[in-house]
Formats: sequence, structure tokens, C-alpha cells
Amino acid sequence: MMDRLLRRCRIKSRLFRECLAEFFGVYILILFGCGSVAQVTTSQNTKGEYLSINLGFALGTTFGIYVAKGVSGAHLNPAVSLTLCVLGRFSWTCLPFYVCSQLLGAFLAAATVALQYYDAIMDFTGGHLTVSGATATAGIFSTYPADYLSLWGGVVDQIIGTAALLVCVLALGDPRNTPAPPGLEPVLVGAAVLVIGISMGSNSGYAINPARDFGPRLFSYIAGWGDEVFRAGHGWWWVPVFVTCVGALLGALLYELLIGVHHPDSEPEEAEDLTAVLQQTVELDGMQPKFDFFKENGKDGIFSITSADTG
Amino acid sequence: MMDRLLRRCRIKSRLFRECLAEFFGVYILILFGCGSVAQVTTSQNTKGEYLSINLGFALGTTFGIYVAKGVSGAHLNPAVSLTLCVLGRFSWTCLPFYVCSQLLGAFLAAATVALQYYDAIMDFTGGHLTVSGATATAGIFSTYPADYLSLWGGVVDQIIGTAALLVCVLALGDPRNTPAPPGLEPVLVGAAVLVIGISMGSNSGYAINPARDFGPRLFSYIAGWGDEVFRAGHGWWWVPVFVTCVGALLGALLYELLIGVHHPDSEPEEAEDLTAVLQQTVELDGMQPKFDFFKENGKDGIFSITSADTG
Amino acid sequence: MMDRLLRRCRIKSRLFRECLAEFFGVYILILFGCGSVAQVTTSQNTKGEYLSINLGFALGTTFGIYVAKGVSGAHLNPAVSLTLCVLGRFSWTCLPFYVCSQLLGAFLAAATVALQYYDAIMDFTGGHLTVSGATATAGIFSTYPADYLSLWGGVVDQIIGTAALLVCVLALGDPRNTPAPPGLEPVLVGAAVLVIGISMGSNSGYAINPARDFGPRLFSYIAGWGDEVFRAGHGWWWVPVFVTCVGALLGALLYELLIGVHHPDSEPEEAEDLTAVLQQTVELDGMQPKFDFFKENGKDGIFSITSADTG
Amino acid sequence: MMDRLLRRCRIKSRLFRECLAEFFGVYILILFGCGSVAQVTTSQNTKGEYLSINLGFALGTTFGIYVAKGVSGAHLNPAVSLTLCVLGRFSWTCLPFYVCSQLLGAFLAAATVALQYYDAIMDFTGGHLTVSGATATAGIFSTYPADYLSLWGGVVDQIIGTAALLVCVLALGDPRNTPAPPGLEPVLVGAAVLVIGISMGSNSGYAINPARDFGPRLFSYIAGWGDEVFRAGHGWWWVPVFVTCVGALLGALLYELLIGVHHPDSEPEEAEDLTAVLQQTVELDGMQPKFDFFKENGKDGIFSITSADTG
Repeated sequence: MMDRLLRRCRIKSRLFRECLAEFFGVYILILFGCGSVAQVTTSQNTKGEYLSINLGFALGTTFGIYVAKGVSGAHLNPAVSLTLCVLGRFSWTCLPFYVCSQLLGAFLAAATVALQYYDAIMDFTGGHLTVSGATATAGIFSTYPADYLSLWGGVVDQIIGTAALLVCVLALGDPRNTPAPPGLEPVLVGAAVLVIGISMGSNSGYAINPARDFGPRLFSYIAGWGDEVFRAGHGWWWVPVFVTCVGALLGALLYELLIGVHHPDSEPEEAEDLTAVLQQTVELDGMQPKFDFFKENGKDGIFSITSADTG
Repeated sequence: MMDRLLRRCRIKSRLFRECLAEFFGVYILILFGCGSVAQVTTSQNTKGEYLSINLGFALGTTFGIYVAKGVSGAHLNPAVSLTLCVLGRFSWTCLPFYVCSQLLGAFLAAATVALQYYDAIMDFTGGHLTVSGATATAGIFSTYPADYLSLWGGVVDQIIGTAALLVCVLALGDPRNTPAPPGLEPVLVGAAVLVIGISMGSNSGYAINPARDFGPRLFSYIAGWGDEVFRAGHGWWWVPVFVTCVGALLGALLYELLIGVHHPDSEPEEAEDLTAVLQQTVELDGMQPKFDFFKENGKDGIFSITSADTG
Repeated sequence: MMDRLLRRCRIKSRLFRECLAEFFGVYILILFGCGSVAQVTTSQNTKGEYLSINLGFALGTTFGIYVAKGVSGAHLNPAVSLTLCVLGRFSWTCLPFYVCSQLLGAFLAAATVALQYYDAIMDFTGGHLTVSGATATAGIFSTYPADYLSLWGGVVDQIIGTAALLVCVLALGDPRNTPAPPGLEPVLVGAAVLVIGISMGSNSGYAINPARDFGPRLFSYIAGWGDEVFRAGHGWWWVPVFVTCVGALLGALLYELLIGVHHPDSEPEEAEDLTAVLQQTVELDGMQPKFDFFKENGKDGIFSITSADTG
Repeated sequence: MMDRLLRRCRIKSRLFRECLAEFFGVYILILFGCGSVAQVTTSQNTKGEYLSINLGFALGTTFGIYVAKGVSGAHLNPAVSLTLCVLGRFSWTCLPFYVCSQLLGAFLAAATVALQYYDAIMDFTGGHLTVSGATATAGIFSTYPADYLSLWGGVVDQIIGTAALLVCVLALGDPRNTPAPPGLEPVLVGAAVLVIGISMGSNSGYAINPARDFGPRLFSYIAGWGDEVFRAGHGWWWVPVFVTCVGALLGALLYELLIGVHHPDSEPEEAEDLTAVLQQTVELDGMQPKFDFFKENGKDGIFSITSADTG
């Protein structure tokens, strides 16, 4: 019965389905990620530590990808979507829809975290929602640079961090290198986020994702932290939004220049044959996800990037 | 010889076998989970920390599922069993049997933890078994809200936590999304419990499972902690029992509405053909667990949910 | 050239090969396990913490199994070997050879740890090798009970701990339940050791393995810690040696009674057919390890237990 | 369009491609590894702890291997390349090219870490770049022995550590033992690095890799830490460079003598047949990485070691 009710809600537009998946994937990412910061902050390190926050964003990424990957390819990051467009593996037409869905998911997840930790935040701050000071809580939602960090240092930090992310993601999805085993890509992308947090987190909180940073920042602006969230760190807010895109492009360029383009060609005729054989195998194997993998064999594809109409 | 003796104990009732598996699975979950709290509490954080407790429940879940999954589908959580009934993937008739087995497993595991840590608890408390105070030990068995948490805040906390669990579990088991690799579902569900503990644990101890909370609470009531275990936190005990069920249903609804129902239909004829082919493959592959996976291909199934007689 | 020299050393006796593998597997287990205790002890918690020790023994177990599993089945634990004999899955004739190899591996690994940490131990203790006190170092090698633990409490602790280990190991290797994916059994058995250390480690250091405890204890007796290593804890030494065997048998009994014996029979004729098909598949798949898995399909086997001549 | 531009940069020399992969793999390893030390050092343990550093090098190794393995086999360590030459599994002609690429990658990664943490290092040290003292930062780049460690003790430490690494790596890649599942070798080699850091890290910082230590040391020498980086620890610098090679050879010898050479021969005719069947399967499976695995079946190979022209 419930099944039938649910089926009435089915949406036939492929792009809409994909946007829902991107929305929900980022929502899960931020729910777990910012949730872990809220837990560590409001419990004053008694119920977690810096490593918990790294694990929170890493596993948040993992489960965000499990939620979305079969539907939208699980970019979950505007900088990733943009890079895939530049690489010709995603459609420019879909880009704005994906980005908006990602931002909306991050915004609503930040609201959910604020709801779940409302009592804790009120108790910890005494009701004063501040961006800096001993009981600052704006850091639950978005990133702020360390006091010592110059603007230029922050730009370098975000470029290197996002480039490292893209190198890892492209390597994990490159079928001619050592791709992640089918079904474990979400875990390994999560591990990449973990190691970035462990090795590149102390300067400015490893945003490496415009949606992860800007959506929750917007929420904290509206919800009572005020315009200090945009003014803090000499107007830090735009660095995680725009510089991460530069970093992502740089990382993709590096991976392609140093590894990707040098893979020896398989001759086209043979490749076609192979695809036919593969398709057959896949049908026999019955594991749908493997399918996406092979479909893109011919164009150096990141794993299971599907799109409404890749131009 | 021992083999033959054991075989005499074989039980032919499918439901009874499944209930034994649910019992033993929850027993293992709580043995490791509550055991890790006992270790951290009685050693006063010298032999573990908050993260150990998160890992204890996460790996407890993992091994509880390994113990039960091939037999009963490893719900290990009344809120999960209930949700599967509502989704039409589990039989209402079996529900009470599963729930009782889960509660019994949790109760006996709590007793085992108390037995294993008897000397430690006596040494730590000086023999005073209390629910609050510096040497409180009731928290070994069941969850209690933080001082700052309002009842309404606790309800929201348990709804969000259990909803997040169900979203992750349904995504991991959705064969048309990115399902967990066969044989690794228990690890990934454990990872979901880990991240919930890391990001949603400080408010009220992430019960997210009525059996996990109520079985041990009942044990602590009987074993000497007294009726304070039910009165503490303004009568907190019912929140993890009933509110988690609401959260589980909400999470399932969200996953289905945002992801599940929108998967494009495979046409029925083709699907049947495919099933035949799959079955063939599975026989060739010889990995029994894969079988469950595919059997349910047609109905959006959570992984390997089997039941005595799904109505 | 080196290849040829090496090949001259080939040993043809299957039992001898297996004993070498058990020796080397336990050596690796203890090298990493006791090494992590040495690191945490001599660095006074600055280069690790209790969780490091848990990870050290867990990953030590993982790599010990990777080293030995393809040759000897990687028991790496006399209590496991004994239990497999009682279950009829390992030969009583081979048992003493396996146990001696395991003990020798643990002894030599303890010596290696002492060699690697010689300077550190001398610096930390000022040359006084003691079993108790602020600079006690005997705990690097073998387990000692907490001050509060009664003998009876220690017996219960070791029974529950070793029983939990066997339940996990038997579940992971039960082909009719949810077996671990081929090639990942070592990781999952390591995870079982991790969670036992996290939830059952504070009472007496989770020996759960006679060789892990007695081999290094013997070394520390000879190497200068004196007979206090046998007298400490009211003569604790025999508990990890003998009581763990009782625990292992209890765990195996529980798993078989609650899960193992109730698996529905496949009829014998069909099973034979299936085996033939499987063997064919395995040849096609070319993954040798899978082979062991299926060979034992018919007798409820723990994964890849091979033996010189199982009676 | 970008695709076409990239394709113009394609390099046809196999050795050059492999050197690029070794370069980039070590770069990623050191970027994450030394980055995690920089984070823990400059944040004074508030944004990480010793375990973070262990995880940083472990996951750095994992992603370094994912980046390079499909192209060069991902040695990422001159001691590993050398050992493979001695074992006859890698070409002596290629050895110097691999080693130089690895050193260059480590050098440039150290420079990148210094760039990313420039502000942090300046703030932490007040601009005084020192090798020892309360604000020492040379340890971000390369290893230094603990004060108590004798030279002989350091030599033993590096021999045991690197031998342990090789035993684990050879076991994981031995197709006649329990090889790591295809696609997860990078994770498991990372786990080996993790456990070595947890159990053998406190004496001298587990270099176990000449490139990991010497490349960054050279950078720190040039970048302002001065010749103290070579004089510290009574001229410690050569131990991680040369002694690790001895350790690697010892580890390989031990694995081969105790496990490797004793694997029973498959008769040659049968083996050939099997290879044919495998190749067929592999084509059906379409997972290129598996291919490398089997190609070397006949010569006891470490996983996917490919070389320009193995003599």
C-alpha cells in the first residue's frame, strides 16, 4: 500500500532525479560532517577530538556518495562538477542545476545540524552566537582561516587541497590505472577526504568544496551569526568558493598530464569488440554499477559519471 | 562425534532459527558496544576514549550482522524490523518474535558485560551503583541525555539519528543505486553507526535502536541500579524506545521519496529474463549471499531480508 | 640466480611448510602487537595511546594471517587449533606441531621487539627491568591483570574474550552465513581482535591466545625480568594459557548451537553437482584462494583450513 | 577541446611514463605524509596527534599507489625497487631512473608542504628554522633519531622496520598465498605502513624508504634548515638511505625462505592451460588490473610489477 503511494511520487525527468540525488548526497555529507564539528565544539573535546571531525567529513562523504552515486554520479561538489565539464565528461547545461542542488542540500543540512544541536549550542554559548572567541560556534558550519594565515597563504592552501582531492578521485576512477573495486569507490573517496583533513586541515579547515562551505555559511548568516561570517578572516568566504575551483582544475590537469594522457591507446576496433563482450558479462554479472564503469571505458572516464545529456 | 551431537540439536522451524540469529546478533552487538563503554568508564579514560566507544558499537554492529545476516537478514533493531514491515519487505506476523529475540539478546549481553566487568565496576564505584554523579555506571548499559537537553531536543535528536541510520542502510542495500559489495555490507553498516556516533552522539548517546537501549536498561534496573534508570532525565527511557521508530520511518520515507521511487522501471518481461540469467550466474558463482541480493531485485529490497513468510 | 639458490631450500614436507607458516605468522603478529606496546610504554604515551595498542595487535593479526593463510590456514593461536580439532576440522596429529611453531614464533618475536627497543627500554627503566611500578616494562611482552581483578574475575574475562573471538572467526568463515569476501578475511579477523581490545581489554589485557601470552612471557623470564613474570597477579600466567582454550571451545559451541547446526541441509546429490560447477567456475575465475573456500563447503568449514592429513 | 590539447602531450616512451608515475606517486605519498607532520607540529597537537601522522603516511602510501600502480607498479621506494631487481622481478637498467624519479617526487612534495605551511611554520618558529629544540621543524621533512638511540640501535631499528614492510608487501602480492583482493592492494599496503608506524615509530620515525627521507632532507637543507639536517643525530642521515636497503633485502629473503619457495609447483603444462583460461576470463571480466596479476603467476610475482624491459 505504502509502496503504491510512494510510486505516485515518481519523477520521470532524469535531470530532476539527478538533482534530487545531488541534493540528498550533499545533505548527508554535511549532516555528518558539520554534525561532528558541532559535537566536538559543544562538548569541548570530551566527546570527540580533531580526528573525529576528520572522520565525520570522510564518512559523511562516503555515505553521501552511496546515497547519490547510482543516480547522479555523486559529484557532491561544484568544483568537481565544473572540472568534469571542462574535461568534457559532464554537460555544461546541467552544471547550474547540479550546483544549486548541492548548495541547497548543504544549506538545509546546516539547518538540521543547528536544530539537532540547538540546546547544546545555547548551553555552550549562553545564547551568544559568535564567529570568534572562546565560545565561537560559527566554525560548526563553515571554515575560517587560522589567525596566522595570510590571504595568499589561504589561497595556496585551498588550491593544493582541492588539487589533491581531484588527483585522488581521478586516480580512483581511472579504468586504465588501478581503479577502486566496484562498490567501494565511496569508501575510498572518503579516505581521500580523511587524509586531506589529516594533512591539510590546520590552516583553514579544508573546505575543498564550494557547496560544503558556502551553503552552511549562508545558513549561519541568516540564523543569527550575522554578517561577521562574511567579514571574518578579512573576507575569507570567497576563497573556499572560487579558489577551490582553480585547485580542482589544476589537480585534474596534473593527473591528466602526468598519468592520464600517457595510457597507451587500445585500437578502436578491438575496443568496440571488447565493449560488446563486457556488456554481455555485465548482464551476466547483474551488478548494475559495474555497467557505468565500462560505458566510459573509451573516454578515460571518472567512475559512473552520468548526465542528462552530455554534449 | 561432536558434530553428530550438535546435529541432534538442529531446529527445523525457520522462524525459530531466525529468532536465534537475531538474538545472537544483538547479543554480540551489545557485548562489544556496552563492553567498550564499561572499559572506558571503569578505566577512567586510560584504556580508551570517546572514539573507542564509537568504534565498539560500530564493530559490534558489524560482527552482529556477520553472525546473523545469512540466517535472519540481521535487522538487530526493532525500529528497522518495523520499518521493513511498513515498506512491505518483512512480515508483520514475524515482527513480535524478532523484537522479543532482539530484546532478549540485548538483556543477556548487558548481563554478560556486568559479569565481565563486575570487579572493575565494584572497584570504580566502591559498590554504589548510581545513575549520576562522578562514579555513575548506569551509562554503561543504556543512554541518558546530557544535562542541557530538553525533552523536545532529545526527541529531535533521536528522530534525526535514526533517520540517518535508515537512509544509510537503505542506500547500501539498494541494488539500483550503489550497493555495498557482497560480504562487506556488515562493515559498511558498522561505518554508518560509527559516523552517527561521531556526529550525533553527544546529546543523548545515539541509542537509535530500541532493543540496544531498553534491554540493557531493564537489566540495570533489575541488577541494582534501581528505578532511577527509568526516572532519570525526566523519564528519558521511552524516547529511545518509541521515538527511534518514528525516526526510522521518516528516514525510510525520505530515502524512498528522494531516491528510491525514482529509479527507472525495468520492463517486467525483460526483468524476468534477467532474473533467470542472474540465477544462473549465481549458481555458477556459488556465493550464496549474492543470491539473496538478487532475489529481491524486483522489489527495491534491503539486502538479504528474508523472513519466514512475508505476507 | 638468487631465485635458484632459494629454490634449493625448498622443503617438500607439507607439515613442515605449514609449521613454518604458523611460526612466521605468529612472529609477525607479535612483532607488531608487542612492538606497539613497547612504543606506547617507552614513549610514555607521547607516540601512541591505548588505541594504538589495539590497532597494533589488530593489524598484527591481519598481516600474520596474510603471511600464513595460503599455506597453513593461519590459526596463529593454539586455542583456535585445539577448537578446530574438537570440531573435527583439523588433525589431532598436527596439533602439537602447530602449537610449538606458534610458541616459537611468539618467543622469537618478543626477542626481536626487545632488540629493537633495547635502547628505549634501558633509557625508560634506567636498566631496572620490572614487572610492576612506574617504569614496569614486563607488560610489553605478556599480559598482567589489573589490581582490582580477582582470579575468578580474570577467568571469566578470558573465557568471554576468547569465546567472542571464536564466534567472530567462525561467522566470518561460515559459507552458509555471510562469509567475509575472499582475500579480506585477514582484515576482518583483525577487526574482531580490534573490537575485543576496545571492549574487553582493560581487565587483563585481552590475551585470548596462549601463544601470544606464553611465548613472550617465557622470553621476558629468560631475558632479565625474572620469575616475577610468573608470580605476578597471584600466578596469573596460567589463565591466558589454559582458560583461553576453554573460552574458545565455549565460543565455538555457542556459534554452532545458535547458528551453525541450523543451516538447512543441501541434499547430498545436489551438493556434489554444485561442487563440480563451482570448481569449474573457480578455474574460470582463476582466483586460487576461492578454491579453499569451496572445498570445504560440505563440512561447515572455517575458511581455508588445510592440514597435512585431517583424520 | 581540452582533451585534444592534452593528447598532444602524450609520451610514447614506456620508461618515461613509468618514471612520471613513480614521481607523482611519491609526490602524493610525501605531500600527505609530511603534510600531516606539519599539521601536528605547527598546531602543537591541537589539530592531530601521533596517530594522525601514522594515518597520514599510511593513506599517503595508499593514494600514491593508486596514482602510480597501473602504470609503473608503484614501487615508490628505492629499497623496494632494489629488492625487486635482486629477486629478478625488475630490470637493473630501469633502477636508476626509478630511484631518481622517486627522489625528485619526494623533494618537490617537501617543497609543496613547505609552501602550504609557510605561514604556519613562520608563526610557530618565529622564523627560526631549527633541527632541535622546542620549536624544531626539521622533523616535518625527514626523520631524526630519539635522544636515547645509539647508532647501532638505529641501524637495527631501520633493518627490522623495512624488513617488516617487505614481508607484508610480498605476502599481499603472492598469488599462491592469500593475495589482497584486486583493487585493494593500495589500501592494504597503506595498512602495513600504518602498523609499522604504530609499532616501530618511536625510535627514529620509521623512514623505511630512502626517497621518503632523503628527498625532503635535501629540501630542508637547501630551504634554510642548513647542514644541521645532515649532522644531527651523529650524522643519522645515511641510516634511512642505506640501511633500509639492507632491511628490505633481509625481509624479502625471510619471506622467500619461510614461505615463498615452499609453495608446491604447479606442473608447467597444466599451468599453461590455466593461463589461457585465465586470460579468457580476464577479457570477459574486463578489469585490466587483474591482468597484471596473472601474467606473473608463473614467477612468484609481486603484484603488477611491470617494467620497460625486465632482463
